[in-house]
Amino acid sequence: MFRLHGFSASNYYNMVKLALLEKRLPFEEVPLHGCQNPQVLAISPRGKVPVLEVAQGFISETDAILDYLEEACPEVALLPADPFQRAQVRALAKEIELYIELPARYCYVEVFFAGRATPEALKAKARRDLDKGFAALAQRGRFAPYVAGECLTLADLYFLYSVDLACQVGQRLFGIDYLQPLPGARALFERLGENPNVHKVAADRKAETPAFLQRLRAATQAELAG
Amino acid sequence: MFRLHGFSASNYYNMVKLALLEKRLPFEEVPLHGCQNPQVLAISPRGKVPVLEVAQGFISETDAILDYLEEACPEVALLPADPFQRAQVRALAKEIELYIELPARYCYVEVFFAGRATPEALKAKARRDLDKGFAALAQRGRFAPYVAGECLTLADLYFLYSVDLACQVGQRLFGIDYLQPLPGARALFERLGENPNVHKVAADRKAETPAFLQRLRAATQAELAG
Repeated sequence: MFRLHGFSASNYYNMVKLALLEKRLPFEEVPLHGCQNPQVLAISPRGKVPVLEVAQGFISETDAILDYLEEACPEVALLPADPFQRAQVRALAKEIELYIELPARYCYVEVFFAGRATPEALKAKARRDLDKGFAALAQRGRFAPYVAGECLTLADLYFLYSVDLACQVGQRLFGIDYLQPLPGARALFERLGENPNVHKVAADRKAETPAFLQRLRAATQAELAG
Repeated sequence: MFRLHGFSASNYYNMVKLALLEKRLPFEEVPLHGCQNPQVLAISPRGKVPVLEVAQGFISETDAILDYLEEACPEVALLPADPFQRAQVRALAKEIELYIELPARYCYVEVFFAGRATPEALKAKARRDLDKGFAALAQRGRFAPYVAGECLTLADLYFLYSVDLACQVGQRLFGIDYLQPLPGARALFERLGENPNVHKVAADRKAETPAFLQRLRAATQAELAG
């Protein structure tokens, strides 16, 4: 049985968790918070979650975990069979990660945790990058009804757990509704919201949020004091 | 025959080019410069290079291209056969990209093109991220002699074309020699430098650099004037 190390308030953790649920693979959840402690670095060299523990050892980095699950457990596939079509799904997932998730991430502390304000230079960069990232999503996204076409794929995991956060960054920091020109994206969020596995992930995330915020506040205070 | 769109001064372009050469796949190079022009966005939604043109159409995003080549042309493999070992290589490649290439990239304009200084907030973030990124490389990198083990893999492409640039950023902006604690990394650069395909890519890059810098200066002047 797989063991998934991480925490339910992490959007990357939830991508892997949803993949495991969709693939109907049994797994146990093991609480782990990303940090630079030696015991975390031993299983995840950059100190990040999620980490998937399998019979042979530990796998870190969401992309690597998702590809592993596709290769080791292909029964319920989250990628098309044809290499060219697989590449289109992977490119879309990558575009969401690099050009939507990562720029939005600069601003998460300010937007979601009422923490330190994002430095203006980073905020300006985030804004420029998000404008282009959402334009790319508008061009590549199929929303037919899933983001890459007729079936749920790895790209929907990135869509579901990155695009929603980035939209909140757009709304709260820049007053922009990035979904306004993307009615298919709104419809897809609604459709995914009806999926029982998505529902379970969301419920777990909600249940963990107070503890997560408390940890974050403690860490911020320690940083300010130190 | 494949057509590789991009330009030889791009480090991501060179990752794909070296993969094609190592796999002994015939390809034609087609000059293309990343930008937001509609004709570029039509084949690369975020306006980035490289783009690989195959019989079925265009593939953008380096990761997606490299995975496509592994799947469509597995004769010379750049990933191990076992899914767990493949995941370790992918995780290492990903760590180099996310935690070394991307933070260093904030500073490329200042360091390599004598352009606009990196805003201090971005520079400070780049420094923090690079410190952790290189610590992760020190832990995960095998250098035995290749970065992920005995064979050349996809992770060596990221190592070769991202780590060298990041080291120059470390040296010139922060006075840090990130390779100092990594003698295996230095030895690997030397070994890779003896590879005739690596040599060809480097020669093409060198030949294109003056034209690239001229384009960049023109773009910067247009931006300042506009």
